[in-house]
Amino acid sequence: MKGKTPAESASTVTLVMQLIHANSAGFIHGGEIMKLVDTTAGVASMRHSNGRVVTVEVDSLTFLAPVHIGDLVTLDAVVTQAWRSSMEVEVRVKREDPRTGDQEQTTTAYLTMVAVDEDGRPVRVPEVLAETQDDIRRQREANLRREERIRIRARLESEA
Amino acid sequence: MKGKTPAESASTVTLVMQLIHANSAGFIHGGEIMKLVDTTAGVASMRHSNGRVVTVEVDSLTFLAPVHIGDLVTLDAVVTQAWRSSMEVEVRVKREDPRTGDQEQTTTAYLTMVAVDEDGRPVRVPEVLAETQDDIRRQREANLRREERIRIRARLESEA
Amino acid sequence: MKGKTPAESASTVTLVMQLIHANSAGFIHGGEIMKLVDTTAGVASMRHSNGRVVTVEVDSLTFLAPVHIGDLVTLDAVVTQAWRSSMEVEVRVKREDPRTGDQEQTTTAYLTMVAVDEDGRPVRVPEVLAETQDDIRRQREANLRREERIRIRARLESEA
Amino acid sequence: MKGKTPAESASTVTLVMQLIHANSAGFIHGGEIMKLVDTTAGVASMRHSNGRVVTVEVDSLTFLAPVHIGDLVTLDAVVTQAWRSSMEVEVRVKREDPRTGDQEQTTTAYLTMVAVDEDGRPVRVPEVLAETQDDIRRQREANLRREERIRIRARLESEA
Amino acid sequence: MKGKTPAESASTVTLVMQLIHANSAGFIHGGEIMKLVDTTAGVASMRHSNGRVVTVEVDSLTFLAPVHIGDLVTLDAVVTQAWRSSMEVEVRVKREDPRTGDQEQTTTAYLTMVAVDEDGRPVRVPEVLAETQDDIRRQREANLRREERIRIRARLESEA
Amino acid sequence: MKGKTPAESASTVTLVMQLIHANSAGFIHGGEIMKLVDTTAGVASMRHSNGRVVTVEVDSLTFLAPVHIGDLVTLDAVVTQAWRSSMEVEVRVKREDPRTGDQEQTTTAYLTMVAVDEDGRPVRVPEVLAETQDDIRRQREANLRREERIRIRARLESEA
Repeated sequence: MKGKTPAESASTVTLVMQLIHANSAGFIHGGEIMKLVDTTAGVASMRHSNGRVVTVEVDSLTFLAPVHIGDLVTLDAVVTQAWRSSMEVEVRVKREDPRTGDQEQTTTAYLTMVAVDEDGRPVRVPEVLAETQDDIRRQREANLRREERIRIRARLESEA
Repeated sequence: MKGKTPAESASTVTLVMQLIHANSAGFIHGGEIMKLVDTTAGVASMRHSNGRVVTVEVDSLTFLAPVHIGDLVTLDAVVTQAWRSSMEVEVRVKREDPRTGDQEQTTTAYLTMVAVDEDGRPVRVPEVLAETQDDIRRQREANLRREERIRIRARLESEA
Repeated sequence: MKGKTPAESASTVTLVMQLIHANSAGFIHGGEIMKLVDTTAGVASMRHSNGRVVTVEVDSLTFLAPVHIGDLVTLDAVVTQAWRSSMEVEVRVKREDPRTGDQEQTTTAYLTMVAVDEDGRPVRVPEVLAETQDDIRRQREANLRREERIRIRARLESEA
Repeated sequence: MKGKTPAESASTVTLVMQLIHANSAGFIHGGEIMKLVDTTAGVASMRHSNGRVVTVEVDSLTFLAPVHIGDLVTLDAVVTQAWRSSMEVEVRVKREDPRTGDQEQTTTAYLTMVAVDEDGRPVRVPEVLAETQDDIRRQREANLRREERIRIRARLESEA
Repeated sequence: MKGKTPAESASTVTLVMQLIHANSAGFIHGGEIMKLVDTTAGVASMRHSNGRVVTVEVDSLTFLAPVHIGDLVTLDAVVTQAWRSSMEVEVRVKREDPRTGDQEQTTTAYLTMVAVDEDGRPVRVPEVLAETQDDIRRQREANLRREERIRIRARLESEA
Repeated sequence: MKGKTPAESASTVTLVMQLIHANSAGFIHGGEIMKLVDTTAGVASMRHSNGRVVTVEVDSLTFLAPVHIGDLVTLDAVVTQAWRSSMEVEVRVKREDPRTGDQEQTTTAYLTMVAVDEDGRPVRVPEVLAETQDDIRRQREANLRREERIRIRARLESEA
């Protein structure tokens, strides 16, 4: 199975935030952003694995700045690392004020997606061929986050 | 400001999963569950703080078992701990097969919500009055997770 | 077939009413509440009958108080009585002002649901085991409402 | 205030029922039909009263035949009678098989709508000028249904 | 295969435009109107061809006047002409101010729909039996528009 | 007012097509694609004009190949030409089979958008600075399409 670079599966979505995505105070729901994050991560991981995927974990989904009605929101998804049948996808969310063109980072999320066959059983995925400096940094951090996930669960279980 | 017990703000939602929530393989989207998790956490934290809230972080949202079309899904949200203007909410998601009544845990999520005024500025929230053994355990684990969040960010920044 | 108590199949949903559910004057559409009522009655009757259900009649769906954007709405569904293959479900709808915690009853609906097999043919349902005073009162009123439904149709047909 | 005939405010909607409106067995949800019924009754009563309306009661909403994915559904709404600030609207729902053009009546609903001003207070509505034999029959039956509604509530309250 | 008059397949939809259809300035999205235009054209062409249809071209979809939240929108679809397996459908969109009953034309669209079998292959459709003066004018203009479509593509290709 | 290149305002969206976008035969609705086309054209024209826009015409929206559930759909919007207060936007729609990565062009649409102020009145927009060979070709074709639009309306009016 031939590996793929992160650039080959990277995915982008830009949308205008509307009344339908907002609460009564004009702020876009965190839940709406989460759904878009999951959708965009799904596209990148389907492109990397050439098949079906399911989301198994979302860790460290932070909202650094609120998003408002009328903002443009851009989601950029990139596969950071692949293991046997799982992939980590980083999704960066920017808001952009259309009147000025100013952009700011609002959310960064890391999702673990698993490639599955028609019956939902895990299948092998291609390895990630890190080419650029950014690719290599993302791959290293993905490995660190994975270690942390394993360590935290162990600690919580021992202290519970 | 008078404290509140977790029971006073606890919230529940049970829904049937439909075609509209599923991908073409009949699995319910992770993103749909995330949106329901955010909505239910919103209700519990609005009840605890008597006002508006925004989601600032979701950490450790895991999907232990896939959800299918026709399943009943129940979300139970409870405020675990409150700090100055922020609250941690635990949302447990169960799936239930309506033909047998069998239930299994599918997702557990921890969200940090901040209470805000009309202009989006943080406001004080009541403390959490832990009464039962479960209340006390949840409060202790909430404090541990908060420490971890702070520690992980520091480590990633130093190694980046 | 073993009977079930109303408590075994009772279902609850709490949601925040959003812009998406409202007309341009900020009132929540009656039709949105109706859809939630049907959904919640569906969950309770699926739990009672362990299978598929279809709605065959909604009678006396009243809206006692308007619901606004930002309100919390709680729907409580309980199976009141079962006949051969049909069940009556009562759905009570409360609105709650999150700033004060005050609640008021806004809607009460009675739905007749029929349990069906894969081909849509009616199937037998368990009887309702009324345990509490409330269970017994609801069962008696369900029988009265059923008599009224039969009587009204007869009168309208004779006078038409 | 000049009266209006039922024909002046009558409203029609024809739609194709899609996956989005159906449960996992391919039946269209009762709740979807209810929402369309409320929407169509809203259009007819807005045309009769030249303003805003709220739904205050739906009585006798029956589903005579199931609706399937791919069916055409036509809703015809007509104002049957008007009192001080309230109107009764009849909504007839037909399903149509597009392959044969065959139609059958599936639902008939009677809704009480109240005309309101910007602050939600009831306002006077024009009287209904019954012209045709059908107009006169509908007006007579609307009066009977109103008497029944008042009588049923009294009986249930005395027996409760 | 027996022909059909335009009146036999004509379709109508009237809806109230809501917050959910609008941008943050209160204008209804062009895209929402387009979706309704496609839906209503679909009903008329399904009735003409007694089967499945797919949209293959929309030409000259103009928005003559903006639509606002609270407006009533009426779409009238009529099949203008049929060729081997394709049909042209005209959809006229009116907005209506419910406070005054005033109506104005806001959009006129011409769609080419093709009748298909279960596998998506084109099938023959009945001819259009033009009866009224309007039917005959629409049929003549449909033929002109079809010639233009063919001519424009040729010119753009030669100049590209 | 400084001009902008097409690259500065170009916008992209990639989505997975789901059950919610499809008819009962598994084909994605033309109307869903139209709505996405309008949304993506809206983002590009908001970026070009730094403000609000309304859609005034869609001409030549063709569907060259059907889109199915499970396909990835990518929309690329680019501003081709600007006049006083109006812009033409080209939106190219590709479908991609995630199992093979194969792509094919399915739709090309040309939309005329007008920049408006808060009261809906047209405002001036920056000129389009065509840089690449593609930019220049698109600008020339935009001018041709505009002439055609004017000429066709004149001919239809004289022959009507």
